This record gives sequence, C-alpha cells and structure tokens, in this order.
Amino acid sequence: MKIPVYWDERQLLHDPQAELSDGRLVPYAESPARARAVLEVLTASARMEIRAPEPLDEALLHRVHDAGYIALLRGAWADWLKEGCSGDALAGCWPVRGRRDVKLTRVQARLGAACFDAGTPITAHTLAAVEAAAAIGVSAAGAVAQGAGLAFGLCRPPGHHAGRDYMGGYCYLNNAALAAERLLAGGLQRVAVLDVDYHHGNGTQDVFYARPDVFFASIHSDPSTDFPYYWGRVDETGAGPGLGTTLNLPLPRGTQWAGYAPALETALRAIKGFAPQALVISYGADTFEEDPISRFELKTSDYQRMGAAIAELNLPMAVVMEGGYCIGALGANTLTFLEGLAQL
Amino acid sequence: MKIPVYWDERQLLHDPQAELSDGRLVPYAESPARARAVLEVLTASARMEIRAPEPLDEALLHRVHDAGYIALLRGAWADWLKEGCSGDALAGCWPVRGRRDVKLTRVQARLGAACFDAGTPITAHTLAAVEAAAAIGVSAAGAVAQGAGLAFGLCRPPGHHAGRDYMGGYCYLNNAALAAERLLAGGLQRVAVLDVDYHHGNGTQDVFYARPDVFFASIHSDPSTDFPYYWGRVDETGAGPGLGTTLNLPLPRGTQWAGYAPALETALRAIKGFAPQALVISYGADTFEEDPISRFELKTSDYQRMGAAIAELNLPMAVVMEGGYCIGALGANTLTFLEGLAQL
Repeated sequence: MKIPVYWDERQLLHDPQAELSDGRLVPYAESPARARAVLEVLTASARMEIRAPEPLDEALLHRVHDAGYIALLRGAWADWLKEGCSGDALAGCWPVRGRRDVKLTRVQARLGAACFDAGTPITAHTLAAVEAAAAIGVSAAGAVAQGAGLAFGLCRPPGHHAGRDYMGGYCYLNNAALAAERLLAGGLQRVAVLDVDYHHGNGTQDVFYARPDVFFASIHSDPSTDFPYYWGRVDETGAGPGLGTTLNLPLPRGTQWAGYAPALETALRAIKGFAPQALVISYGADTFEEDPISRFELKTSDYQRMGAAIAELNLPMAVVMEGGYCIGALGANTLTFLEGLAQL
Repeated sequence: MKIPVYWDERQLLHDPQAELSDGRLVPYAESPARARAVLEVLTASARMEIRAPEPLDEALLHRVHDAGYIALLRGAWADWLKEGCSGDALAGCWPVRGRRDVKLTRVQARLGAACFDAGTPITAHTLAAVEAAAAIGVSAAGAVAQGAGLAFGLCRPPGHHAGRDYMGGYCYLNNAALAAERLLAGGLQRVAVLDVDYHHGNGTQDVFYARPDVFFASIHSDPSTDFPYYWGRVDETGAGPGLGTTLNLPLPRGTQWAGYAPALETALRAIKGFAPQALVISYGADTFEEDPISRFELKTSDYQRMGAAIAELNLPMAVVMEGGYCIGALGANTLTFLEGLAQL
C-alpha cells in the first residue's frame, strides 16, 4: 500500500524576505524551496501517493488555538497595511516583563504580545499558507483515523513552536497539535506526540502541558545553547492532570547517531508506557549534519534507523513536517525517514 | 548664576547602526548627533556652564538596577563576540509567555529576557556611553543636592524606558531614576519625577511603582497608539506602599499646547499635593511638531511655557535628557525649556 502524502501548493505562498538573527536581517531560512525539494523526491517514489488535504475544520482549529489569537493571525496583514506599513509584518516590541492583560490596539503591539521572536513575519500570503499547512497536518491524521498505518503531512510553515495563543520560530499554527486533536476527535483516548526536530517543540509542549490524554516527548538540542532557549529542559514534565506526560530529552551540540539512539530509545519506552493508540511525529530534518542553522550530526542513513526504531512501537502514525534547512538533502532525508517508518 | 550642564563626550561612543521598526532595519534614530546638537546650542549660551560629571557611584547604581542585569550589560558585548557574532548585539527571541525563571546561558537568550524591543542594540562602546550617561544624570542631581536650584544632565542614551532589570526603547540604565535616588541619598525624604517625553516612562514607573517616597508623573502619547504600548494607562497608579504615587496622563496624537497645558497643570497639582523636596524632570523634546518618530505638535516657544509652568512649583530641579529626534531643533527646544525653568 502506498503512503499518503498530503500536499497543498498554497503553502508555497508564504515567502518572507528576512528574519532577525544575531542582530542582522538575514535571508529567511524557512523558504518555499524546502517544501518543493521534499515534494520532488516523494513524487518520484513509487511508494508515495500525493493527495490534497481536506478543508481545515474550524472547530478543531479552535480546540488548539485561542480565538483571539486566530483573529490576530487572520487580520494582521490587513491591519499592518492599514497602519501604513509595507514589507513583512514583524513585531519590534515585546511585553517581556509580565504586564497585566491590557487591551492592545495597534498590530505592532498585538503581534509583539503574541510572538516570541523576530523570525516569524506575516506577509500578504502567510495566512493562506498557514491554513493550508494546518489542513495538511489534520488530513494526515484524518487518514490515520480512517485506518492508514502511516500518513505524511508535507507542510510548511512548520508548527511546533506555536502555542495556543502565540507564534514564533517560523510557526503560526501548530500542525502537530492539530493532528493529535484530530486523532482524539476521531475517537481515540490517548495519543502521543514525538518531536524529533532539532529544536524543542515548545508550542506543542505548552498546548498539551496539563493534558493527561496527550503524551509529548521531544529530543532536541539543549536549550541552554539553542533556540528556543526558554523551554525544553528535563524538569519540564507537565502540570496538573498532565504531570508526567511531558518528556524532554535535550542533547548536546555535535550529537551523532550513537548519542541520539539512546535518547530515542528512552522516548520510545516512555511512549510505550503511556500506551497511546496512535502517534503523531513532528519530523524535522534539521538534525542533519549539514543543516545550516543547527548542530547535530545525523546522516541520511540515520533517518532510516530512526524511522525503523519508531515503527517498532507498532502504532498508526501521522507525520507532520517541521524544520530542516539543508534543502539539497531534505528530500532524501525525509524519504529515508518515511521508508524507515514503513519498514520498507 | 549659571545653570550647570553636565556633559561627557563618552556618550557619543554609543552609535548603533540600525533598529527594527515596522519590520525593517532602519537607521538608528537615537544618534550621537542629537547630543552634539544640544551641546552646541547650550555652549553658545552665556547662561550655561558645561561641567564634567562625577564618576558613577556603584552603590547608587545598584540601588536602581538589579546586580544580574548590570552584569549582563557589562558583559554582553564580550559575550556576543565570544559567540562569534559580529555587528550590534540585538536579541531576536523573547520570553513573551511568562516562563519560569530558568538559568540562561547564551547572550542572545539573556538579552531577550532583559529587553523588550529590537531597538536597543549593544555595540562595542555602548557600556561606556551608558555609564557616562548615568553619571551625568546622577551629577545633575548631585548639584541640586548641593544647593543648585536647577541643573541639567545632557546625556544619552536616554534612560526612562529602562527598568530595574530590563532595557528597551534606546534605554539601558535609568538616568532619571538614578538622579532621584541621588537626591534621596543626599538626605531628602520625598522626590517627584515628572516625565514630559513623548513616550511613557515605563522604566521609571516600574522602578518606583511600589515606593511611597518617589512620585512619578508622566505626560505622554496614548499607549494604545504609541510605544511602549504595554504601559502608561491611567489606571496604573502604583502598588502596595506606592499606591497613588504614579500618575499617567496619556494624550492623543496631534496634541498641541492647548491640549498639553491642562495635563501639565494636572501633573503639577498632583506633584504639589505630594509635597516633594525636589523634582527630577525627564525631558524629551520628541513632543515637538517636527519630530520624525512622534506625533505631538508642540512648538519651540511652548517649551518656554512648559518650563515656566514647572518652575512655579518652586522646587530644586534636576533635568535629565531623554528623547527628541528632530536634531535641527533639538538644541533650541532644550535651551528654551531650560530658560523657562530658570524663569529667564
């Protein structure tokens, strides 16, 4: 059976020019070319079947994201133009010290209050791409809910840094969290999310932090050295009814497969212990040795190993695309991972 | 008697290239040319006496600012270079959602946690300028403590957006708060700070928010339309023992003297009611009609009126320079204000 791969070309419309990095505006790393590169490789594979996603379910969207935040996302570009600004909409001011909850008017202020970095601009077409990506993530989960053993949501912008009411780290809506909610909406009681992107999936963690029905495990670069800095430490383990359903496994820069594999085993053992009925995987290929903005040293063949290890859980799996910025190898790394998952 | 004007040319060393504004890196508005323009006009006035400041008192500095924050400021540039960065040090990531207090390692993360905008870069020479500016503010207050009726601290970078443990809005150390503390250290029991900069003096407000011995009054553009957005509303009136010692008087964009004067009267009446023994004035000339980044419409002659109205309080006054970005008129607007204060 072929692996369903969800794709919507509207995701290519999101094409910001720059992000603030180390004090400079640099070319935007999370480019449409990333998605095109993966699509090209997957299209060439006889084992993949490219499909269009279902329209985004509004009720499901509101289950993950705050209504005010969704409204901000949807209106930001028009508001930005209304204020006479041109170029990409990017906050320049953030309420870093916990201010009381004041009514904010200007879009600059509202974006600053709902965004944790200067790398997540809103362009004229961002909303279309973001909603397409969310629909893709949900559709991959929908395929799993309807019996597929494995489905892939080839989507961008990525989602795992976006929380219930905030954006950041190239992410606006949390595609993986939406996929998990889709599985629950389909009748499952327990779902796990495994995040193997180089960066901690702070948004997904925050969305499910107090939830007993969703287990979140993340293997990522130590936040003391890497973005998103303010989340992702081992002692973040969930809260309230969700205490114990968050597992963070930070690894040092320079980690190769030999160091990665034991962390993956730990994550898989914990997921098994949680006894979920399905798995959502936040797949980022920025753990690759040649990734330009990350510092792990996995090789293309390691993604096969990673996929095969995860497959041993024997769970239905919805995979959503997160990061990965070495465009030349992104298709091969993604295909290899999917082949590992499918035990091909 | 001549008006003492404190000046240290090290303040010119702070010369960042750019700030993030409306999604673009634009030339830095808070430039050394601002201070030079004011110095030139004041030097030409027979009523002014240019003086060098006393060295910055370390104990006083720690009375206003947090030790960890001071250490961050002092080490930031070296840490930035150590991480292989070049160009001005500017955070790109902020802990907008209240995270627990984690130990942060990288300077990018520490700057983001201690800064509320992307307009407050640290350059190789920022620290020298910032400490010179703080010493200037303190020295102006010192002159008042020693009997001068009026003294001016001609300093930059400005200070009123900097809080106890954070920077932002071109500000690093709070020169006005340091001046107020200098007056208290000199034996006074009650001091008022009047902030007439176009932007709300959030840092000064935060420093003294719970303090019964310092009254803070600010006349500024409505934060629903203007930076710093997250502070400066009328219902911010102080806390705990400082309840009632904060007065915010936001005014709409387009305000001219006819609209400004009543707010000033309100502020002066409240200050009188507090019965302070001395006054610190945060003077910003960005209320000027031609200011490139602000939207009030005061004229040069209005600064004489403003000064004369404040002088009626009959209090010893230490003035510190805050904003003002119309460089061509900055000297004249400042001289006119000082002449009004001195009732010349």
